[in-house]
Amino acid sequence: MNMSITTALSWRYATKKMNGTKIPKEKLEIILNAIALAPSSFGLQPYSVLVIEDKALLEIIKTVANNQSQITDASALLVFAAWDKLSQEHIDDYFKRIAIVRNVTLDSLKPMKEYIETQLKNSDADNLSWNAKQTYIALGIALVAAAEENVDSTPMEGFDKQALDALLKLKEKGLTSTVILPIGYRDADNDYLVKLKKVRREKEKLFIRL
Amino acid sequence: MNMSITTALSWRYATKKMNGTKIPKEKLEIILNAIALAPSSFGLQPYSVLVIEDKALLEIIKTVANNQSQITDASALLVFAAWDKLSQEHIDDYFKRIAIVRNVTLDSLKPMKEYIETQLKNSDADNLSWNAKQTYIALGIALVAAAEENVDSTPMEGFDKQALDALLKLKEKGLTSTVILPIGYRDADNDYLVKLKKVRREKEKLFIRL
Repeated sequence: MNMSITTALSWRYATKKMNGTKIPKEKLEIILNAIALAPSSFGLQPYSVLVIEDKALLEIIKTVANNQSQITDASALLVFAAWDKLSQEHIDDYFKRIAIVRNVTLDSLKPMKEYIETQLKNSDADNLSWNAKQTYIALGIALVAAAEENVDSTPMEGFDKQALDALLKLKEKGLTSTVILPIGYRDADNDYLVKLKKVRREKEKLFIRL
Repeated sequence: MNMSITTALSWRYATKKMNGTKIPKEKLEIILNAIALAPSSFGLQPYSVLVIEDKALLEIIKTVANNQSQITDASALLVFAAWDKLSQEHIDDYFKRIAIVRNVTLDSLKPMKEYIETQLKNSDADNLSWNAKQTYIALGIALVAAAEENVDSTPMEGFDKQALDALLKLKEKGLTSTVILPIGYRDADNDYLVKLKKVRREKEKLFIRL
């Protein structure tokens, strides 16, 4: 079913007009599963991803996202939201999870836990910035997963983060939005961008070979 | 040749021990091509990626990267390096490139150029943080591309950024390293991690469905 990554990434583009068609449930789950498998620093996955299909809610979100039509014409909107800090509870939960999945004692994980705790002793602002970067790994993987399933997606940073966070009560959940991704199908007849050539930097400038 | 993204991401892991075997040139080019196709905010691709295969240089890099053996046992080391600021020249170059690729006049791009210039009027520190995030999209895509080609990779943030930047003369190039990715082949017999189950957060915690 899936295409090669080269074909998929050449096919995809930042879709400006979507057609409102729902994507099959299996395809949504493939995309979410790819996000769930995305690596992150120390494996902490310091974020949540909101999967929003509620049409009324999407109508409101559109108003804080420059009225971009993809928000409501998409099949679902993914909101990547980083942990606003790294708490001791987050780290404790992570090690409990490791102990369960790998069937080992918490005690045996102590040296690794202490090492990670030391590494993460930064200001909340620095940790948030680090958490936010991890969401972009998941974003990159999500859009490949979508494209390989012939699903369009449009990464967006152009929205009012504070308004979206308030709307989705993210602060109460210890989260802050970083980037959003409507996923759905292009309305090719009404999207000017689909007709334009993809612009990328020359490889000789992008890559430095040593 | 390529596997589904689910299979690929389940197969991959943060390889701790690589075996020194070179990956075929075609596979390296597939991975670099995926990076070149990675989307970025406004399409600016505000980074370069160093592709390092020089063994002597890798030996030195290892010393500023906690002596992690993958640096020298990999087939190549990818160093993702963000533009340390967003200069007018960067933006001008981008629009010249659009004009060439799409065969349009610079004049016709003026409204879009002015919009982007306004959006990017931030402090250098904020722009660098934004540029750095974009490198993580490319990182996520690179590791999917690698995994789908059965190539192992290990995203690493555990290195001395200032030392690496100095070593690779990145400052002179207007760049600063953000994350590095050795790519190569696992030495399964000597890697403790390949035997351990992948740990990921429960989907009910990672995803919030609305």
